[in-house]
Amino acid sequence: MNKNEILFEKVVVEVKALIDSEKIVELNEYLEELHPRDIAEILVNLEEDKKIKLFEVLPLEIGAKVLDELDSDIFSSILSKISIEHKKRILDLMSQDDMVDILSNLSEDKRQEIINLLDSELAEDIKELLVYKEDSAGGIMTTDFIALRKDITAYSAIEYLRENAPDAETIYYVYVIDKHEKLVGVISLRELIIAKPNSLVEDIMSEKVISVNVNDDQEEVAKLVSKYDFLAIPVTDTNRKLRGIITVDDIIDVIQEEATEDIYKFAGTSEAESEYLEEDKFFPKVIYSVKARLPWLLITLLGGTMSATILGKYESTISQYTAVSFFMPLLTGMGGNVGTQSSTLTVRGIATGHVDTKRAFKTIFQEMSVGASVGFVCSIIICIVAYLWMGDFKLGVVVGIAMAANMLTAATIGTVVPIVFKKLGVDPAVASAPFISTTLDITGLTIYFTLTTMLLLQIS
Amino acid sequence: MNKNEILFEKVVVEVKALIDSEKIVELNEYLEELHPRDIAEILVNLEEDKKIKLFEVLPLEIGAKVLDELDSDIFSSILSKISIEHKKRILDLMSQDDMVDILSNLSEDKRQEIINLLDSELAEDIKELLVYKEDSAGGIMTTDFIALRKDITAYSAIEYLRENAPDAETIYYVYVIDKHEKLVGVISLRELIIAKPNSLVEDIMSEKVISVNVNDDQEEVAKLVSKYDFLAIPVTDTNRKLRGIITVDDIIDVIQEEATEDIYKFAGTSEAESEYLEEDKFFPKVIYSVKARLPWLLITLLGGTMSATILGKYESTISQYTAVSFFMPLLTGMGGNVGTQSSTLTVRGIATGHVDTKRAFKTIFQEMSVGASVGFVCSIIICIVAYLWMGDFKLGVVVGIAMAANMLTAATIGTVVPIVFKKLGVDPAVASAPFISTTLDITGLTIYFTLTTMLLLQIS
Repeated sequence: MNKNEILFEKVVVEVKALIDSEKIVELNEYLEELHPRDIAEILVNLEEDKKIKLFEVLPLEIGAKVLDELDSDIFSSILSKISIEHKKRILDLMSQDDMVDILSNLSEDKRQEIINLLDSELAEDIKELLVYKEDSAGGIMTTDFIALRKDITAYSAIEYLRENAPDAETIYYVYVIDKHEKLVGVISLRELIIAKPNSLVEDIMSEKVISVNVNDDQEEVAKLVSKYDFLAIPVTDTNRKLRGIITVDDIIDVIQEEATEDIYKFAGTSEAESEYLEEDKFFPKVIYSVKARLPWLLITLLGGTMSATILGKYESTISQYTAVSFFMPLLTGMGGNVGTQSSTLTVRGIATGHVDTKRAFKTIFQEMSVGASVGFVCSIIICIVAYLWMGDFKLGVVVGIAMAANMLTAATIGTVVPIVFKKLGVDPAVASAPFISTTLDITGLTIYFTLTTMLLLQIS
Repeated sequence: MNKNEILFEKVVVEVKALIDSEKIVELNEYLEELHPRDIAEILVNLEEDKKIKLFEVLPLEIGAKVLDELDSDIFSSILSKISIEHKKRILDLMSQDDMVDILSNLSEDKRQEIINLLDSELAEDIKELLVYKEDSAGGIMTTDFIALRKDITAYSAIEYLRENAPDAETIYYVYVIDKHEKLVGVISLRELIIAKPNSLVEDIMSEKVISVNVNDDQEEVAKLVSKYDFLAIPVTDTNRKLRGIITVDDIIDVIQEEATEDIYKFAGTSEAESEYLEEDKFFPKVIYSVKARLPWLLITLLGGTMSATILGKYESTISQYTAVSFFMPLLTGMGGNVGTQSSTLTVRGIATGHVDTKRAFKTIFQEMSVGASVGFVCSIIICIVAYLWMGDFKLGVVVGIAMAANMLTAATIGTVVPIVFKKLGVDPAVASAPFISTTLDITGLTIYFTLTTMLLLQIS
């Protein structure tokens, strides 16, 4: 446990003590000092009955913010235990996009039950948002935003914000619409404040507003926001009508989610496994992991069987020269690692935009040079080791040459495969560690035994 | 090339044509429609002389924003070709934190040359910022911020912002200080706007201000900002004096950088390799990659030599029963993949906080269950394949049992090692693919040959 974990444990203990001794006033004061996000974390660590007690103590606005941060399971268990009136009032104060996230993970029944508690306008918004795919711009946007008509003055704009701001997710960027609700510009709160009070919004706004479509993939949205350093981005429908906004905090979540997915893909497990991180039950989690990983393992199994078939052809070589087989794990291991290094860098490079089709040949040539260099160093070492250990110079030379050839091939295949996949429109991450290392087992063993049969057996 | 790449190519062609035909006015109008970030990207794709021509056409503020986005190489090559006067004026308009980033990648001489051009106050700020480590809060913060004294009114605060806002990086969060410049609170622009004009800042501000120390690691800062959904976070020194702020756009860069580093570590290459992504020269890049990857490959080499030694002990088994060796690559490959899947999920889980010491046993048990399940499926398949292919039922059974045992061990080691490393204060990412798969080659082969010698040779 690090410092923060110890500190957090202490806070949980204190909160439990306050709940047990029913010191409501002190508990209230104590919680007031904390960020809603921290209160949510404490809540998760309490026993069922204490959860409710703590939640009932919270002022409505704080309670709503705490709900924003909870998983769907805890969310619905808490809601099931508070009064209908309390439920209604607190749900109305929740952040729309967080509520949509939570509701989309609930069963149809529970979802409907909660929507029935909302006031009709909010219920409409939520139902609309629930229609969008979870990983689309529509799925992560909020409709809690403020838009200004282009024909009002800076002064009235600020007055309008003053009245309506507390409800909106963000007012740092204010989007400007025309009378058909079409997005025509953007103005920052800062520009509104420094503008002359009687200037028209349309004269001070920027018309260069970058927006996304409700159906765009969240990863594309994240790329735009991170490229242009936006705090929020507007979402429009196909008629350019402004439908919602996505704020930078949700973009950070997307970036982290996508990075986790990429890492999972490298390791050869379905990207969907990441969604089950939140799953807390043991068996569903195990079953899900098995489903996500098994396909890659079956590919490896197939590849391994092919390796075995190749080795079967060299049965006489192995039985004549058993020592040859001792170096097989070394060769396949080194090839796999060099190949994984190259493919990982290439796949990540494609994802971050550092490797594109223009620079493809440069990248390939560079990785080949790296493969040749590390191959050279390692083959000299293994040549000497094999000679000293086995007292067999020829074997040392064969293993050394096979190692160098194998590592060069590994670096080349590790780089070329993701680039070709990208060109063909296949996700480059399919060239994951299991795929690459299985392929390289086959090429590596073929190289090794061809060399062995050619050099070792011919000479001897 | 995807849609955006094709579009971008077209823009570059049009800009080149405008520069060639020296249509300055049209070029100006064309560029005005673009975001500085896009102009920077176009610039990078132009020939040397066109770069300067385009840059000289840009209005000062846009030029400064374009400079913010450039790599140190292109930055200094452009600056070396424009007039001193132009240089001075444009440097003063650059974003401080971006300038520090660029300067820290320049040689001492070039850095000093540029600092000498700055006005003395800015030069002091930049020199102060250059002292901090690149990956510390001080290294990514900006001193371009606005702080309010706690004893002024909301009205004067807004007036103050109106006058000083254009210089500041962000005014969406305004930090409040006392007369000793110590951080005492925070107020959002939105709260200032909706407050009564004559209320005092200290009465409407929030005293719960979360800050970081100048020496804190950028990863810790990123965790705080992403946890609490901040748009900016204040940076203080050990006396709690406010020294700078870090904005969310820089946090996004940190998150992406750290994700790339994590991915590199998994593949067994030093995290530092990521810094050289920007390096454009061929040989330095290759040499750097070799240095970053070789240590892991040498570990694999050592492990592979140990595998070879183990196999040497079973020489008689192999020469009696050559078919046993055919399944070696399959077994090591499967073990390596299962182990990499488990270790990757565990390392990422530790990084994102989904796996902590409290949940360690649960995670280990779960991964063991996954390993046992996939092992069971694969061992049945391989048992049948080995039997059908070799016509040797006993061999099939031995390979099947070895496979199941190996996969269970792999999942266990892959999960336990990162958790133990974390406990010992070692970076869990050291348990990368090369490390895990090398370890598993050794355990896997030991299991296989122990079983073979015990079952196959005893029975036959």
